[in-house]
Amino acid sequence: MNNKRETKKVIGLMSGTSCDSIDAAYCLVKPDLKVELIKGINYSYPEFVRDLIFKAFRGEINIKELCQLNFLIGECFADASCELIKEFGKPDFISSHGQTVYHYPFNEKNGNLNLKSTLQIGESSVINAKTGCTVISNFREKDIAYGGEGAPLVCFADKIWFKNSNTLVQNIGGIANVTVVSNEIETFGFDTGCGNIMIDYCANKFYNQKFDKDGKIASFGKISDKWLEYLLKDEYYFKKPPKTTGREYFSPEYIEKILKFAPEKPEDIIATLTALTAKSIVLSYERFIFNKIKIKDVVIGGGGAYNPVMMKIIRDYLPKEINLKTHEDYNISNNYKEAMAFALLGYCTYYNIPNNVPSCTGAKKSVVLGKITG
Amino acid sequence: MNNKRETKKVIGLMSGTSCDSIDAAYCLVKPDLKVELIKGINYSYPEFVRDLIFKAFRGEINIKELCQLNFLIGECFADASCELIKEFGKPDFISSHGQTVYHYPFNEKNGNLNLKSTLQIGESSVINAKTGCTVISNFREKDIAYGGEGAPLVCFADKIWFKNSNTLVQNIGGIANVTVVSNEIETFGFDTGCGNIMIDYCANKFYNQKFDKDGKIASFGKISDKWLEYLLKDEYYFKKPPKTTGREYFSPEYIEKILKFAPEKPEDIIATLTALTAKSIVLSYERFIFNKIKIKDVVIGGGGAYNPVMMKIIRDYLPKEINLKTHEDYNISNNYKEAMAFALLGYCTYYNIPNNVPSCTGAKKSVVLGKITG
Repeated sequence: MNNKRETKKVIGLMSGTSCDSIDAAYCLVKPDLKVELIKGINYSYPEFVRDLIFKAFRGEINIKELCQLNFLIGECFADASCELIKEFGKPDFISSHGQTVYHYPFNEKNGNLNLKSTLQIGESSVINAKTGCTVISNFREKDIAYGGEGAPLVCFADKIWFKNSNTLVQNIGGIANVTVVSNEIETFGFDTGCGNIMIDYCANKFYNQKFDKDGKIASFGKISDKWLEYLLKDEYYFKKPPKTTGREYFSPEYIEKILKFAPEKPEDIIATLTALTAKSIVLSYERFIFNKIKIKDVVIGGGGAYNPVMMKIIRDYLPKEINLKTHEDYNISNNYKEAMAFALLGYCTYYNIPNNVPSCTGAKKSVVLGKITG
Repeated sequence: MNNKRETKKVIGLMSGTSCDSIDAAYCLVKPDLKVELIKGINYSYPEFVRDLIFKAFRGEINIKELCQLNFLIGECFADASCELIKEFGKPDFISSHGQTVYHYPFNEKNGNLNLKSTLQIGESSVINAKTGCTVISNFREKDIAYGGEGAPLVCFADKIWFKNSNTLVQNIGGIANVTVVSNEIETFGFDTGCGNIMIDYCANKFYNQKFDKDGKIASFGKISDKWLEYLLKDEYYFKKPPKTTGREYFSPEYIEKILKFAPEKPEDIIATLTALTAKSIVLSYERFIFNKIKIKDVVIGGGGAYNPVMMKIIRDYLPKEINLKTHEDYNISNNYKEAMAFALLGYCTYYNIPNNVPSCTGAKKSVVLGKITG
C-alpha cells in the first residue's frame, strides 16, 4: 500500500439492519479525509434474498442457506456497484460494509475462548469478480478481535466531519446510535436503543406496510404515557456506554412480549413507539452526555430524520437552547451518509490509517480495520 | 505488495474435513516456490469447538453459534500459531485455509443469482489480533467467484513440487482427491470420491473409535463384493472431472442409507468401505486419466497413507508397472503437506502471483486468491 495520500474514487456499500435496500455511494475521498458524494443509489434486494436475510435475523436460516446467502448478497452488492460503474467508470476500489446478520458484542467466554463475535456477509470475492475492482470489506471483525464491540464505526467519520464543534450526531436506523463530537472530550458514541425497528415491525403487523412513511400512522395516534413509561424501564437504556445493541435484542419475541401490555389501537401503539425512540434518545443524552459537555447542535440522520412526528417529539424533549439539525445542513447526504462513511473507512484501510475509535467501540487500541481482496 | 520475491517465513494453517486437529506448519517459502518445513504441529480443537463443527457439518448449527464459531476457530488457529511463534519467532505472515463448514460447488441459480458457494471460517482478524501477524486467508471463495469449484487448491502446489514427471498425487483425507502432474498435458485434478469419511463414521458408530487406526479393524474383516459393487454404482464416480464433493454429499444420511444394504459384521463393513475408497480411486484413474497419459508414479498422501490395508488394496488394483510412493519419498512431509501448500498459496497472494489452477478447479481464469488482513 501507498503512504502518500491521493484523492481516490471509492464506491461505498452499506446495508443496515432495516435491510430495505443496499446504499451505494460513488465518492471522492480526499487526503484530508473529507468525502464528496458524486452519486448515490438505492439498490433493492430481490425478494427471495430479502426473505433469506430476514430468515437469518429470525435465527431460522440453516448453514447451506447462509453459505449461499453470503455469495448472493455479494452479487447484489456487485450489481449495485455496476450501476454506478456504468455511469462513472471503475473506482480505485470498493469499500463494502456487507450485511450484518448476527452481532454478539458480549464479553462471554467458554473456557479460555471468547464468544464475542459478529457476522457480516456479502462475499468480497464475488464483488471483485463481477466488478474487477479491489474490495475492502469486513471492518467490524477486527475491532471485536481487539476487544471492542465492533460498533459504532461511523463515529470515525463523524469525528472527522463534525470536528471543532460540540455536536451530537444521532443516527436513527433500525437501531439508533449517537456520536459525541467535541474538542473538549474524546469522541465517543453508543447505541441509544431502538430506532425504527419496532415501529417497522408494527407497521408491518397491523398495516402491512414496510414502515410508517412520514410518520403518517403515528400522527393519527395518541401516546400512551403508561405504556411508554413501562417500555422505558428496559435495562438497556440504563446501561452505561460503551454499549451496542441490535436486532437480536429488539427481536420479534421482545416486541411481541411488550405488545401484550400495549394500548388497543394500532395507531396508538405506533405513536407510542415513535415517542419511545425519541424519548430514549433524549434520555440517553441526559444520563450519559449532558453531564460531560455542553452541546450546541444535534444532527439527526437515518430514516428517523424523514419522520416529522419523531423529529417533533425529539424537538419537544430536547432543551430549547440546543439546535436540531439534519445532515444536509452540513452538506452531507443523509441518505448516503453511512455508505460515504464506509468509503472513508476503506480509504483509510488502503492507506494503513487506523480507522476505529476505541473511545466509541471499547477496543483496546486503534487499528486498521478491514480485509483486502485484491 | 512487493514484486521482488524473497524467502519468507510463513505459518501455514489447515484443518480438513476430518476435523481431527489443526495442522500448523512453520515454513520457509522460497522464490522458486519450494517450501521447506521447519516444524509442524497438530493442535487439537477443544471438545466443545469440535462438537460445534460437527453440528455445523450435520446442518444443525444456528446462526448465533456459527457467528461465534468463526471467532472461536480463529482463536484456536491463533493458539496453534502461537505455539510455533514461541519457538521460532514471528513469521512474515500467516496463511490460513480455515475450516470448511459448507461447500456447495454446483452451478445452480435462483433467478440471475448464483447459489454456488463455499464457507470457510476461522476469523482472520482474531488470528491477527492474537499473533500480531498479517493474515492471508479465505482462498476458495474467489475461485468460486470466478466460476471454479473452489477445489482442489493443493493442485497448485503439486504442479510446482512434482513437475517434470508423470505423477498422480493422491490425497486421502475425509474426501479423496487426485492431481495429475505432467509435462505432456495441463495439470488437472478432481475429488475421486470418499476418502476416510465413511470408514471414520463406522469406526465411531460400531467401535466408538475416531478412525480405523492402521487399518486394524479392516484387517480382520472380509470385503463384501456384492456390497462393494452396489456402492460403486453411485453416480459421483461416473461424473466427468472437474468435479468436487464433500461431507454434504457423503453425509450421515447417505451413510445410514447405504448401511441398510451392508454385510452384518462391522469389521466386514469397514473392510468393504476401505476397499471402496481404494477401488473408487483406481477406477477414477482408469476412467479419466489412463486414457490421456502414461503414469509412472502414484504418490499417496493424507491419512489413507497410514492405513496399510488401504495401501495394499490400492497396490493390488493398480497396474504393476506403476510405482506406489509416499510424499516422504519426495522429501515432503505427508502430515503437513496441506499446511505447507497453504503457506505457498499465501506466499503467492502476498506477491500477487495467480495461485489457482483453472484446469483443476474449472475457474474461468487464473487469479490471485485470498484476502489480506493487515
